[in-house]
Amino acid sequence: MELPQDSVGAFMTRDIRGGGAGPLGGLDWAAKDLFDLAGEVTGYGNPDWARTHAPAAATAPVVVALLDAGARLVGKTKTVEIAFGMTGENVWYGTPRNPRAPDRFPGGSSCGSAAAVASGLVDFALGSDTGGSVRIPASYCGLFGIRPSHGAISLAGACPLAPSLDTAGWFARDAALLERVGAVLLPGGGGPAEGPLLRVEEAWANAEPAVAAALAPALARLEASFGPAIGLALAPEGLRALQDAYRALQSQEVWACLGGWVNATGPTFGPGVAERFTVARTLPEAEALAGQVVRRRMQARLRPLLVGGAVLVYPTSPCPAPLLAASPAEQQRVREATLCVTAIAGLAGLPEVTLPAGTVAGVPVGLSLVGGLGCDRALLGLAKRAAGVLGLG
Amino acid sequence: MELPQDSVGAFMTRDIRGGGAGPLGGLDWAAKDLFDLAGEVTGYGNPDWARTHAPAAATAPVVVALLDAGARLVGKTKTVEIAFGMTGENVWYGTPRNPRAPDRFPGGSSCGSAAAVASGLVDFALGSDTGGSVRIPASYCGLFGIRPSHGAISLAGACPLAPSLDTAGWFARDAALLERVGAVLLPGGGGPAEGPLLRVEEAWANAEPAVAAALAPALARLEASFGPAIGLALAPEGLRALQDAYRALQSQEVWACLGGWVNATGPTFGPGVAERFTVARTLPEAEALAGQVVRRRMQARLRPLLVGGAVLVYPTSPCPAPLLAASPAEQQRVREATLCVTAIAGLAGLPEVTLPAGTVAGVPVGLSLVGGLGCDRALLGLAKRAAGVLGLG
Repeated sequence: MELPQDSVGAFMTRDIRGGGAGPLGGLDWAAKDLFDLAGEVTGYGNPDWARTHAPAAATAPVVVALLDAGARLVGKTKTVEIAFGMTGENVWYGTPRNPRAPDRFPGGSSCGSAAAVASGLVDFALGSDTGGSVRIPASYCGLFGIRPSHGAISLAGACPLAPSLDTAGWFARDAALLERVGAVLLPGGGGPAEGPLLRVEEAWANAEPAVAAALAPALARLEASFGPAIGLALAPEGLRALQDAYRALQSQEVWACLGGWVNATGPTFGPGVAERFTVARTLPEAEALAGQVVRRRMQARLRPLLVGGAVLVYPTSPCPAPLLAASPAEQQRVREATLCVTAIAGLAGLPEVTLPAGTVAGVPVGLSLVGGLGCDRALLGLAKRAAGVLGLG
Repeated sequence: MELPQDSVGAFMTRDIRGGGAGPLGGLDWAAKDLFDLAGEVTGYGNPDWARTHAPAAATAPVVVALLDAGARLVGKTKTVEIAFGMTGENVWYGTPRNPRAPDRFPGGSSCGSAAAVASGLVDFALGSDTGGSVRIPASYCGLFGIRPSHGAISLAGACPLAPSLDTAGWFARDAALLERVGAVLLPGGGGPAEGPLLRVEEAWANAEPAVAAALAPALARLEASFGPAIGLALAPEGLRALQDAYRALQSQEVWACLGGWVNATGPTFGPGVAERFTVARTLPEAEALAGQVVRRRMQARLRPLLVGGAVLVYPTSPCPAPLLAASPAEQQRVREATLCVTAIAGLAGLPEVTLPAGTVAGVPVGLSLVGGLGCDRALLGLAKRAAGVLGLG
């Protein structure tokens, strides 16, 4: 069977594995090129990484689970190098095109997976999300996407970035398939996600006015179905403090995980990535310790609040996908504003589903639902109901 | 053993029952005169009630439980007639004095119980709380008080007012004793109450500025110990809508419970009470139905939010005790503003503990902690820790 042409530059390699009977039988999918396939080098988006790593001895368990469920793997998708970036740019292998806005970034780091799903090349795709790497490309490309509860899905056989923040997530064009994949990958049980909706005021205020305006009607329709949202001033320390904490924790772990390889091989990085590694290498210990305090506080605050079924709601990203022509300074501004909101679920370790609930001048923007720790399955169910309410299929 | 003189006019009758070994051994207490004692007429604050009711055949189980725990019952305390009022006034038997502010009302309807504890005549006292009848006199008299989860403590052998809202509660001068009584009366198990603190913005805005200012330092100290409070805009429909719903539900049930007796006996009521019975008798059915909708919405909103340990925090009463000289119009204004906040836990059926955390020109005002359904024991534990933080002993 022939695969359609890779019209958006989403793939690194295209090889068919699996495909058979099972709960995901008949579906094509792709995996971000940071998950191991036995016998292949995992590229991690950087030529020096590929050059310095041997073929994987085993296939990552999350990949095995999807193959066992009957889904046909059709290839590996591009990632931002070392998954360490948010625009989706990859100067070595080419930046995948955003099928919904070709003059804009696709979002990253799971850029190829998002582009492959959004262009219809596959039914769903596996990515990873540390600081927004599924949520942001889903928002930019008009997809459903999930970052699961931290630890809910094994990351064995996946390249690490910041293990206490890393998660495996996935994309789909409809909420029903997003949920079907979850039924295969997520552990059974878990808590509810039935509301009330909690409108995180700081995250709405952090969004560009056009984004907030584009998503407000969707929230209003959800409120009409699920009851009025409770307004929540979640972070007295300010979202910027969450972003600072996230960046410090991530930087410390990035260097702990990857500093040895960087020192040993002297890899060449593209713009932005190199700078972020320098930040990671030189991070003052005190900043990481302060980040730990903020993280514990966010966990203590959010986990009890959501365990009974309450769900946070806010714009997934503060802005639509930036233009490919955006300056480095503009990209940095977007990155920081974005981490202010992605850090909420990131620090608290909570599951977040983004729905393609609006557009700004035709460019997609996502609305996020964040549930309690371990409430991933119920959250996917709520997202499906919400998609129905919003007419998203 | 002689009992000290009833210097504040708290008691209806004074008879000693019980007193022995047990978890409450050595403690004196009193019961609001709406709980049955075998062989005595329960007065319910109104002479026509007493005249038309026979002596109780049995003692209320909640009274039995306290007697079995070794506490010595020293008498029955005054109640607002039919427990249907909030100032604590009783024109038939005299309004108990507020020991902390003799020119002001003690609060009601459990006015005698509050006055007896605040004056030191007893160690603790049993009251009941439908719309604030423990919480408000506790706030006015500078006491700790609890309204438990609806249904947590049997109201068998207690005169009904509005059964879906009625609860048995109690007063003490310190949080440790409040908790010890709870250990006797409350069912075991139940959920946590460990935070985060949720500052209900509307309730703080509803409080008189002097009350909010008097309690703000206490909240700041609690935040220093338990973590920053999350701001919560709880009721998009407005607190006034909660008050309307509460009043409609209460009115409907009051008439359902007591209309037959009123019609049969034609009792004489004091000012205010008579008017409230007229409202209850003539309530349009549609208002009660609308109240049911608001109540279900509040329960659906608050119960999931608090089941994991989160705790609402706000001023128990929007104002200090009104002056005895306050006009009927001023009393009505206070009543309505008060029901706006007491309706929160009332409609949701949740436990609320009030702490004597501040004063306004020397007059006490209480700070409330509201926990999840069934989290009463944990909430009492949290209140004890909070009292320690606040230096309330």
